[in-house]
Amino acid sequence: MLVVMKQHATEGQVEAVVEKIRSLGLTPHAIPGAQRVAIGITGNKGSLEPSLFDQLPGVAEAIRVSQPFKLVSREVKEEDTVIDVGGVPLGGNALAIMAGPCSVESREQVLETAHAVKAAGARFLRGGAYKPRTSPYEFQGLAEEGLKLLALAREQTGLKIVTEVMDVETLPLVADYADVLQIGARNMQNFSLLKQLGEVRRPVLLKRGPSATIKEWLMAAEYIVSRGNYQVALCERGIRTFETMTRNTLDLNAVPVLKSLTHLPVIVDPSHGIGLRAHVAAMARAGVAAGADGLIVEVHPRPEKALSDGQQSLTPSEFEELMRQVRVIAGAVGRAV
Amino acid sequence: MLVVMKQHATEGQVEAVVEKIRSLGLTPHAIPGAQRVAIGITGNKGSLEPSLFDQLPGVAEAIRVSQPFKLVSREVKEEDTVIDVGGVPLGGNALAIMAGPCSVESREQVLETAHAVKAAGARFLRGGAYKPRTSPYEFQGLAEEGLKLLALAREQTGLKIVTEVMDVETLPLVADYADVLQIGARNMQNFSLLKQLGEVRRPVLLKRGPSATIKEWLMAAEYIVSRGNYQVALCERGIRTFETMTRNTLDLNAVPVLKSLTHLPVIVDPSHGIGLRAHVAAMARAGVAAGADGLIVEVHPRPEKALSDGQQSLTPSEFEELMRQVRVIAGAVGRAV
Amino acid sequence: MLVVMKQHATEGQVEAVVEKIRSLGLTPHAIPGAQRVAIGITGNKGSLEPSLFDQLPGVAEAIRVSQPFKLVSREVKEEDTVIDVGGVPLGGNALAIMAGPCSVESREQVLETAHAVKAAGARFLRGGAYKPRTSPYEFQGLAEEGLKLLALAREQTGLKIVTEVMDVETLPLVADYADVLQIGARNMQNFSLLKQLGEVRRPVLLKRGPSATIKEWLMAAEYIVSRGNYQVALCERGIRTFETMTRNTLDLNAVPVLKSLTHLPVIVDPSHGIGLRAHVAAMARAGVAAGADGLIVEVHPRPEKALSDGQQSLTPSEFEELMRQVRVIAGAVGRAV
Amino acid sequence: MLVVMKQHATEGQVEAVVEKIRSLGLTPHAIPGAQRVAIGITGNKGSLEPSLFDQLPGVAEAIRVSQPFKLVSREVKEEDTVIDVGGVPLGGNALAIMAGPCSVESREQVLETAHAVKAAGARFLRGGAYKPRTSPYEFQGLAEEGLKLLALAREQTGLKIVTEVMDVETLPLVADYADVLQIGARNMQNFSLLKQLGEVRRPVLLKRGPSATIKEWLMAAEYIVSRGNYQVALCERGIRTFETMTRNTLDLNAVPVLKSLTHLPVIVDPSHGIGLRAHVAAMARAGVAAGADGLIVEVHPRPEKALSDGQQSLTPSEFEELMRQVRVIAGAVGRAV
Repeated sequence: MLVVMKQHATEGQVEAVVEKIRSLGLTPHAIPGAQRVAIGITGNKGSLEPSLFDQLPGVAEAIRVSQPFKLVSREVKEEDTVIDVGGVPLGGNALAIMAGPCSVESREQVLETAHAVKAAGARFLRGGAYKPRTSPYEFQGLAEEGLKLLALAREQTGLKIVTEVMDVETLPLVADYADVLQIGARNMQNFSLLKQLGEVRRPVLLKRGPSATIKEWLMAAEYIVSRGNYQVALCERGIRTFETMTRNTLDLNAVPVLKSLTHLPVIVDPSHGIGLRAHVAAMARAGVAAGADGLIVEVHPRPEKALSDGQQSLTPSEFEELMRQVRVIAGAVGRAV
Repeated sequence: MLVVMKQHATEGQVEAVVEKIRSLGLTPHAIPGAQRVAIGITGNKGSLEPSLFDQLPGVAEAIRVSQPFKLVSREVKEEDTVIDVGGVPLGGNALAIMAGPCSVESREQVLETAHAVKAAGARFLRGGAYKPRTSPYEFQGLAEEGLKLLALAREQTGLKIVTEVMDVETLPLVADYADVLQIGARNMQNFSLLKQLGEVRRPVLLKRGPSATIKEWLMAAEYIVSRGNYQVALCERGIRTFETMTRNTLDLNAVPVLKSLTHLPVIVDPSHGIGLRAHVAAMARAGVAAGADGLIVEVHPRPEKALSDGQQSLTPSEFEELMRQVRVIAGAVGRAV
Repeated sequence: MLVVMKQHATEGQVEAVVEKIRSLGLTPHAIPGAQRVAIGITGNKGSLEPSLFDQLPGVAEAIRVSQPFKLVSREVKEEDTVIDVGGVPLGGNALAIMAGPCSVESREQVLETAHAVKAAGARFLRGGAYKPRTSPYEFQGLAEEGLKLLALAREQTGLKIVTEVMDVETLPLVADYADVLQIGARNMQNFSLLKQLGEVRRPVLLKRGPSATIKEWLMAAEYIVSRGNYQVALCERGIRTFETMTRNTLDLNAVPVLKSLTHLPVIVDPSHGIGLRAHVAAMARAGVAAGADGLIVEVHPRPEKALSDGQQSLTPSEFEELMRQVRVIAGAVGRAV
Repeated sequence: MLVVMKQHATEGQVEAVVEKIRSLGLTPHAIPGAQRVAIGITGNKGSLEPSLFDQLPGVAEAIRVSQPFKLVSREVKEEDTVIDVGGVPLGGNALAIMAGPCSVESREQVLETAHAVKAAGARFLRGGAYKPRTSPYEFQGLAEEGLKLLALAREQTGLKIVTEVMDVETLPLVADYADVLQIGARNMQNFSLLKQLGEVRRPVLLKRGPSATIKEWLMAAEYIVSRGNYQVALCERGIRTFETMTRNTLDLNAVPVLKSLTHLPVIVDPSHGIGLRAHVAAMARAGVAAGADGLIVEVHPRPEKALSDGQQSLTPSEFEELMRQVRVIAGAVGRAV
């Protein structure tokens, strides 16, 4: 149930609705909106009667929400969410471009990449300090040392930092350094972590699990939002199918479907999605043409020496060329970079 | 093995190579090329020695082909295949736009749609007279009556006809009417039909099977080409995955992968791919941005009354709007419509 | 809609019901049953009123059929179908054991295998004379010569012949030799072929398509049965998933699901299902324990020299050992071999 | 690399090998074995020379390990691992039978179920106190109160407790109560959690992720084992495929494949696997016939009132009947219950 307040409803009227909801043993969620306040209700077992609320002073209407995801749905909030990442928008008309190495490996590598992707037009620097790896014997990341290098790159370039947090234990530390907390695909349904992310006041980039349905993905976002953190963006990074020629199957169908179902920004990761350097640009272009709100791209100064994901990383000059193409496609669909 | 002749090799030199191949118990395949002749060799169990051929007069080089698909591979023919469909190109710089109803239902429906899609910029009219249906109790198509209506539409509009052939028995009849023979997804590995298609001199649009790998798909095309019909285009129409919100998962990753592996044209079918009218345009744009050589789109004057696939058919005016978007994206990637 | 006649209904009463159905523009299907006659009705757009039929003389009841598959459903025919293959049952309490080489390769190979599998307990000999192959350059089968060798093996051993028919053209020829017509996985939705199979009077073994849902599979069987051929058995042979360690993923879940939905016999193919010789026996045992009505197993006297599928073929002595295990499991679930 | 010591090698000889390994900057792992000691080596980038070790005193041989999973592989330890859960074996000839409710809901429910499943032959009680749920609005479990109820049931029945741990924070608490720590499917690649599980001295039941390959699953087990906890059992619980009639697709192919690749016990979960109460017994029988070392089955006294998974829970009397069937199949494959 969503209770939509009239445009000039008073604070007292809003408070009265909140009290009414609590008095029924339910949970109110005030939904941020440019024009007017709305209050989502969760905790009910069956469906609620609109008449419980729509006669209260200041209430415009009470709407039943048909989807199992509530607060992240377009039904509850019609306009697109634009996350303010320290002055840089994530969501909205301008594409959010994130680029950088898979893993933070060294001071030189991070700084060189950061300057290069900034010059090409990125506004976010991606890079992993904690790396989820299939094998326990593979490089697991530089940990806090890596976070410090990212912070240094931010200082030098002004780029916002997107980096992965893998668990609740390191969340406070990572949140100290990161501008956007990335949740990896294999952690999409790590519900303990999702709940904690609902408590922090940091934007979250939630990657889709390799076999997660769109609905499960939105429910994972709902975990975060229902705890009070509305700054969530979704990242399509490829699903697992029977095809073996590509690393994953980047599911661009998810982009328009998500844009119709949710107000959250949708980012596309062509690097993990197709996993082949030669084809990253084609999928990045396609992602923007499909309506994505941004891209996250792996860039490494020397991909052949990368400690992880070298086969899908662009060189800085390939990234520059990609950005030229993306600008043209963005213009063609009425978006800016 | 591929034997590439020098640019000014004589017919006699080519014939001598062909004879040499036959004398070894192998099968020669002359490969059409703008600049020079090449001769593919199949039928060998192990790999062949280049030295068997590269010293023959007129031979430029003899190349081992590493892929299991030979004649359709870029290794064997570097330049893009452009199929000449009675004066209209399929492949090459200009996008091939195919549009029309899922099923041919009536004279009025076909003619109205044909005129509308032509006005919007299509050069091919699609429409099924023989319909593969999951249930034996569903509408199975108008058969020859449907073919006649398509021919009438061609007469009135000049559009080229793309229509499905379901079996060897009706192949001669369908080939009498069709400009392009469409092979449905479920028939992609109907090898008896593929072999017959290798014998006809009609362009073929080969749809990807719902769980076919890219390699299997190219092998299916190889069945046709190895029998002598080089006029094959591939059509990505969505694969089967775990996701249930979309009808299929349009796999745009296949587009750049195919463009690097094969010289055959690649067409995208956003209608079957995502299966939701509201999102067909987004996937069509993405397909062009990914590098497709054309689109095939379902258009019906009254989708809500269509005997099949109404939920994914555009109205003529929606198609017109789509074409406007496609033109812009095409321009952005250096293609024309 | 299913009209069930009383146990002692007269022929005239049955005929009157059939006439009534035809007079409504619908199609009657007499359903064979041990105890009583039933008449399925197809061709209606909406649902029919039971009162149209249940007051007619001799009618016990008129039942709405909820599934999209009608004639193959348990709703329409409760008891298990047992196909009589020239005196050998396919379906029913005794397991139908089919064994033999993937491809018929030579007289010696077929006869040696036939005698061996018969001695081990098989009652059906499998072997392909027409082979659907992914590549046009692979061995395509011995064609009629192979059929003759199978017939010879039947003469010598009394085994019933199960062999694949790939297309409508060769159907009459294959039907002349075969006791059971096998339809390969890639032809499961070759609707033109399915329709013709409805016209012949030969049992059909319908393999599941690699990405066919259980519902689609039953609809494919419905194509055959709705044309009048009730002698259809289903064969689970593995579906396509993301797992690459096994050739396919044998989906034994389908066995109990099918047994509850349909009266048709269900056969399991552990050879194609898992595709690894060392594990065929485990999957065969599991198939029987799950409730399958039979097995079809690849056996070759010299698997390492087989022209196809050697890596999943058992030797005769491995098959003999498998049959010992199968007998024990069969006994444990109240079945005989 | 695996260094296998001679049967009567002295402690000093073992220690010398360990020192040698450390001196090369590599990590030694002593592998428990009934007959002789072996020492696994990890940490090397390229492959190691056997001659580095096989001349040392007491060394029988030094073997290269070809799989990416090392310590869990059969190459490294040939005999089956049998985990001693407080006197009850998990692995080995006797099947480990685990049963109980999806969620712990109340004292009465847990105790009633525990007594019933014990009477039917189970030796482990399963039950979730912390529940991973797709939706944040669903029942999340009774937490420590649930653990206490499980402990009470253990006291009354002697059953060993299998219960899920969802995160590192609650791991010490859950480990205080549990005999076996269950890791849910969605946490299979929660690497932070896996690492911590390597530090505790509690048996772990590691469920397969819904889209995890067998190799990834073994690598996840390797995370735990490589940190020193060898008490890991694997649980197949169904993978995600395109089929929608069953909740998941129980992949019994994984059972024989795993038994050949690893020495760890393999448990089958037919309840989550097929997700349909009517078919749980068939899949349980099939699992045992395929070679599983045990079963984990959901049982609830009143499934229709269960707070989670009611549609796949057996009643105590259905479980009793299942156990009768399992005993017969177990006997048929030379196993005891």
